Amino acid sequence: MADPRFFAVQGPFTLAQLAEIAGARAAGEADPGAQFHDVAPLESAGPEHVSFLDNRRYADQFSVSGAGACIVHPDMADRAPPGMALLLSEEPYCGYARIAQAFYPARQPEPGVDATARVDPSARVGAGCRIEAGAVVGANADIGDRCRIGAYAVIGDGVVLGDGSSVGPGASLVCCLVGQGAVIHAGARIGQDGFGFAPRAEGHLKVPQLGRVIIEDDVEIGANTTIDRGAGPDTVIGAGSKIDNLVQIGHNVRIGRGCIVVAQVGISGSTTIGDFVMMGGQVGLSGHLTIGDGARVGAQSGVMRDVEPGETVFGYPAMRAKQYWRQIAALGRLARGRGEG
Amino acid sequence: MADPRFFAVQGPFTLAQLAEIAGARAAGEADPGAQFHDVAPLESAGPEHVSFLDNRRYADQFSVSGAGACIVHPDMADRAPPGMALLLSEEPYCGYARIAQAFYPARQPEPGVDATARVDPSARVGAGCRIEAGAVVGANADIGDRCRIGAYAVIGDGVVLGDGSSVGPGASLVCCLVGQGAVIHAGARIGQDGFGFAPRAEGHLKVPQLGRVIIEDDVEIGANTTIDRGAGPDTVIGAGSKIDNLVQIGHNVRIGRGCIVVAQVGISGSTTIGDFVMMGGQVGLSGHLTIGDGARVGAQSGVMRDVEPGETVFGYPAMRAKQYWRQIAALGRLARGRGEG
Amino acid sequence: MADPRFFAVQGPFTLAQLAEIAGARAAGEADPGAQFHDVAPLESAGPEHVSFLDNRRYADQFSVSGAGACIVHPDMADRAPPGMALLLSEEPYCGYARIAQAFYPARQPEPGVDATARVDPSARVGAGCRIEAGAVVGANADIGDRCRIGAYAVIGDGVVLGDGSSVGPGASLVCCLVGQGAVIHAGARIGQDGFGFAPRAEGHLKVPQLGRVIIEDDVEIGANTTIDRGAGPDTVIGAGSKIDNLVQIGHNVRIGRGCIVVAQVGISGSTTIGDFVMMGGQVGLSGHLTIGDGARVGAQSGVMRDVEPGETVFGYPAMRAKQYWRQIAALGRLARGRGEG
Repeated sequence: MADPRFFAVQGPFTLAQLAEIAGARAAGEADPGAQFHDVAPLESAGPEHVSFLDNRRYADQFSVSGAGACIVHPDMADRAPPGMALLLSEEPYCGYARIAQAFYPARQPEPGVDATARVDPSARVGAGCRIEAGAVVGANADIGDRCRIGAYAVIGDGVVLGDGSSVGPGASLVCCLVGQGAVIHAGARIGQDGFGFAPRAEGHLKVPQLGRVIIEDDVEIGANTTIDRGAGPDTVIGAGSKIDNLVQIGHNVRIGRGCIVVAQVGISGSTTIGDFVMMGGQVGLSGHLTIGDGARVGAQSGVMRDVEPGETVFGYPAMRAKQYWRQIAALGRLARGRGEG
Repeated sequence: MADPRFFAVQGPFTLAQLAEIAGARAAGEADPGAQFHDVAPLESAGPEHVSFLDNRRYADQFSVSGAGACIVHPDMADRAPPGMALLLSEEPYCGYARIAQAFYPARQPEPGVDATARVDPSARVGAGCRIEAGAVVGANADIGDRCRIGAYAVIGDGVVLGDGSSVGPGASLVCCLVGQGAVIHAGARIGQDGFGFAPRAEGHLKVPQLGRVIIEDDVEIGANTTIDRGAGPDTVIGAGSKIDNLVQIGHNVRIGRGCIVVAQVGISGSTTIGDFVMMGGQVGLSGHLTIGDGARVGAQSGVMRDVEPGETVFGYPAMRAKQYWRQIAALGRLARGRGEG
Repeated sequence: MADPRFFAVQGPFTLAQLAEIAGARAAGEADPGAQFHDVAPLESAGPEHVSFLDNRRYADQFSVSGAGACIVHPDMADRAPPGMALLLSEEPYCGYARIAQAFYPARQPEPGVDATARVDPSARVGAGCRIEAGAVVGANADIGDRCRIGAYAVIGDGVVLGDGSSVGPGASLVCCLVGQGAVIHAGARIGQDGFGFAPRAEGHLKVPQLGRVIIEDDVEIGANTTIDRGAGPDTVIGAGSKIDNLVQIGHNVRIGRGCIVVAQVGISGSTTIGDFVMMGGQVGLSGHLTIGDGARVGAQSGVMRDVEPGETVFGYPAMRAKQYWRQIAALGRLARGRGEG
């Protein structure tokens, strides 16, 4: 079970309740009234636990797991150990997410403004907010209902935070409008002026950065990630997009809806990214590119040209993934063919 | 126009004034007394706005822009839409920078030391400084005139900050001497002891790091960037160099004057970089290298050998850029020639 | 000598004392009673200084150095300038580390809890701790003896910090158990919930992250590094491992003992790394991999498959280092052979 120092478990739930929560079908002779007390990973789960199998890499663990119940794709049902109750789902990871949310519902922050918080008298703070030690809320900032602002976070003058959004400890936001339900993790830096210089031998000239950062509803921004404000246009992160830790997003970048951007990605200025794009870790994108809806970019790729909607690219420089792997294979044969492989 | 919640516009300025500010020449029959009220991007500018064209990629937007005036290279003048006043400049981006600075001059911080700031009695703080909530200024620190120290920034014992420098919220500086007019963004970590270990099977031995970080005049350090202090020699960032966000600079690195280092670059210990070197995003440099004046390193390159002055390198491992592209082309032909392309 | 604004030197020490400290042998006719007052780099050392030569790249500097004494491998002794006292060691860098520690012993923090620190009444704080301005120690947190918690660091509810550990300014730790003697640098983000989403077209589902981060004894975590807590299992950093700045470590990653992880490395979720593994800067590892004990991964490599114990890999995608360099050579010949090189 999760360490009670950090997590408070709810429940128990019956198998029937869990099936309903997960949108899954209880398989075989399982007792719908059997009670389960927690979720647990396959390798450590016991009879009172619910586990899940999503990645076939772990099928062997599944076959010997002591979990009392498991959410699993119907195709894997015959790999189950005897006596395990099965919750069959086409999307076992989604099912697990829902069951884990039931056992460990997101805690509402306890409302209150810490005595050491620095809220400007001209700022508006909504109902039910939690503002922790030393957090700064600037002049004319507009904080929605049920927001959480972590210790020593700095919300600049005029910044807007929508209902139910949260900002982690030590993060800083300036020149920024944030929608509802957004999560900004610790140490993220949002809205500082971007890397705008007109290069000159006599000294690079600073170009005033006059845009904002727009973060739409349900966006998540990872720890220590940096997002520069626009130079004139805005920098925009579309609704529901999830940005991981240590990502760099340059000025004027526009990211569409539902994108997944894994850790340490860097997106250069003025690049436009469509909806539901997925980028692996450490990807780099040149500036002024257009990446189409649903494109996928493999980890560490260096993208220097536009990517078509739905295309999967990979490599350095990035190209169609098939083409890249073909080149890697040809190079391997070449090196061996020289009699040195 | 820029969002008035975040920016306060000055002006208006006449076309003649703008030409003088930009060092540009007003072209054609434009009325030198015509007034302009703001800058704006080509695609959203109206008749009261000044815009600019620097990147030919946006020439089509220029041709249909509603901007009242535009700073543009003389070569592009014939692409202008009818009625647009032109400000001709060999360096339109520099011209735009100056005009944007006129409309949006850098705000002087309002002087004052916040009641919650922790300034050690032995520290010197110059005239006209702004020290925000909770900022720490350590023993014997020496802060010049007109400095700004953001909320919860930590300036360690003995640190020197030159006149007109600023440190963003939550940044931390130790063992560090900073020149005049430097800008250190939020969350930057300057002067912690570098990654100095003598590796041993019984436990890696910590090697005391006895140098400093020297940041010369007019340097800019991006958000969440990390710069380790020297191991014995100093780590040095030369005057006027601009370091972007999330950059890592190891101990004993020396960066010359006027360099541009784009986001997420990593420079390993004891590498020396000349003046006016440009490095694209996510570049990595091995330790103990010498990179000559005016060299250029393409984005994501992995530099494992010295680079000559003026050389342009690219790739992984980095080589002369021409050579790398030739190899990429040869590899493409090879893969196709196998009948698989 | 080190800048006295930042460092306080001890000593002097005689040559005989230094030999004992370093575990080295004083060579030739050197006077064992000769006194030395400081360490210094080869190029700036004078007669009162001890220097070291570890990297043959600097042998020429060694031959003309003015250092009074030098720790050096016996093989290099004949390159010494006349009159230099030699301290011969098979491991000169370890010897230097010990001598530098003698001149500059790690300062014990002056105990005390700053009046502005926010220590929850239910937290336990050991003897001799230093808790700086504004630092937050949450409910039921357990802080060992002689710990240092920097200004505005945030130690979450229930977090455990072992004896003699330190946390830099502005760092934040939640859901985390830290061993003894660990060093966590400024701005590090430990234990936030990892990038756990079940992707769906209707909106990615958040998966509760129910594990912890376990940081064992003598681990060092670099500035602005991010380590996500486990999703169910824990994220573990083994004893004595050294993690550099701006590293990303995903949920469920297990790192063994004595590993060296250089700056800007990214390790994807659920990857397991053995003991004494070394990874160069900017390396990326896919998720769910196994990296064997003693493996070495060259800088910037992209590791997409398991690595055997003791194997050295390099490249993108990473392969045996010899194989990669053979491919690079073959590609160079191919490009030249086309008559274009």
